[in-house]
Amino acid sequence: MSTARTGSLYVMPLVTAHFTMSLDGFMAGPDQTQETPLGVGGEELHRWMFDEARHPADLAARDHILAPRGAYIMGRNMFGPVRGDWASFEGSEDWRGWWGDEPPYHAPVFVLTHYPHDPIEMEGGTTFHFVGGFDEALARAIEAANGDPVTIAGGASAVRQGLEAGVVDEVMVSHSPMTLGGGESPFAVAGLVAEPVKVETSPFATHVYYRIKRD
Amino acid sequence: MSTARTGSLYVMPLVTAHFTMSLDGFMAGPDQTQETPLGVGGEELHRWMFDEARHPADLAARDHILAPRGAYIMGRNMFGPVRGDWASFEGSEDWRGWWGDEPPYHAPVFVLTHYPHDPIEMEGGTTFHFVGGFDEALARAIEAANGDPVTIAGGASAVRQGLEAGVVDEVMVSHSPMTLGGGESPFAVAGLVAEPVKVETSPFATHVYYRIKRD
Repeated sequence: MSTARTGSLYVMPLVTAHFTMSLDGFMAGPDQTQETPLGVGGEELHRWMFDEARHPADLAARDHILAPRGAYIMGRNMFGPVRGDWASFEGSEDWRGWWGDEPPYHAPVFVLTHYPHDPIEMEGGTTFHFVGGFDEALARAIEAANGDPVTIAGGASAVRQGLEAGVVDEVMVSHSPMTLGGGESPFAVAGLVAEPVKVETSPFATHVYYRIKRD
Repeated sequence: MSTARTGSLYVMPLVTAHFTMSLDGFMAGPDQTQETPLGVGGEELHRWMFDEARHPADLAARDHILAPRGAYIMGRNMFGPVRGDWASFEGSEDWRGWWGDEPPYHAPVFVLTHYPHDPIEMEGGTTFHFVGGFDEALARAIEAANGDPVTIAGGASAVRQGLEAGVVDEVMVSHSPMTLGGGESPFAVAGLVAEPVKVETSPFATHVYYRIKRD
């Protein structure tokens, strides 16, 4: 949002997002499960991030992703495989995210879900908070970030909600050179106009840093 | 296709495509008409090509597009606004393409259509031939190209047919930093894997040259 609101108690922070997208415009493959959290083909999509032979462009993009943020917003399907009620399968009520004891966020993460859940405090400064809608998540993330950037960590639906709301300032898209054949599109928003301000490329992805334009 | 077929009378030429694509994956906006041939928003999509203040990256991409080819394949909706029978509106039977007397192709162009039409010879070496399906168009284009590259000029459906058939070697995608909200997707093909081999960028587009990989 990045506009100082006169009379507000806080300065609006930069709101960003970053994600890897296939040539057919999807952020994860179809049929996401606990075993294949990125869906069919989704791991290959993120090969630039995981491949052992890391290219400088991919390292720079990873550094960009891992840079400290004030707070995060995350869709529930990115937080975990639990759908519907938190106790929907054996052990699912104990789900604490994909990232082990110390998630890489080191900041408050506001998870979008219609199903209430107590906050989960992890090691290293990450606390998962569960909120009922995007607007509430954004307001709480901005407050928690205390002027530092707020980042929409994914997935596609959370990013799209941010773009639709017109609150996103910058997006790094890692265009992955493959198709998935199905999935959810973060850019299914009519009339969005952006400007590429930086591009770094490797054989595994073309990382484009877009500034979202305002009317 | 780019593989010399042993025993064939001709060497298989390189088969390429190039197109501009929105962030939501479309090559033209919705509601294409004779007045808005690129659909709603489609002209803005191609701004990198038409804008007067041309950036070196955009000029290089334009040069790539305008380089001589042996033959072209083109979808009928790219050739013109006529749908169904060639005499579907007043004067439509005289339609000779969007490009005036001397189209920029200077080579045979094989237009995909189920409606028979005599060839149209234009100035400057372009002749439009009308063929009933992609396979026939490809065979005739390869023969006419005599070893020079064959390029799928568009639109989305023609490109997708080429990708589905597995005959495309290289694609230049000009990623345009905007969304259209609807249209047809050239990459609606599952399991395609490519490699970006060159990237040139301007404020108006990120031009990525992809090599399509084979299994």
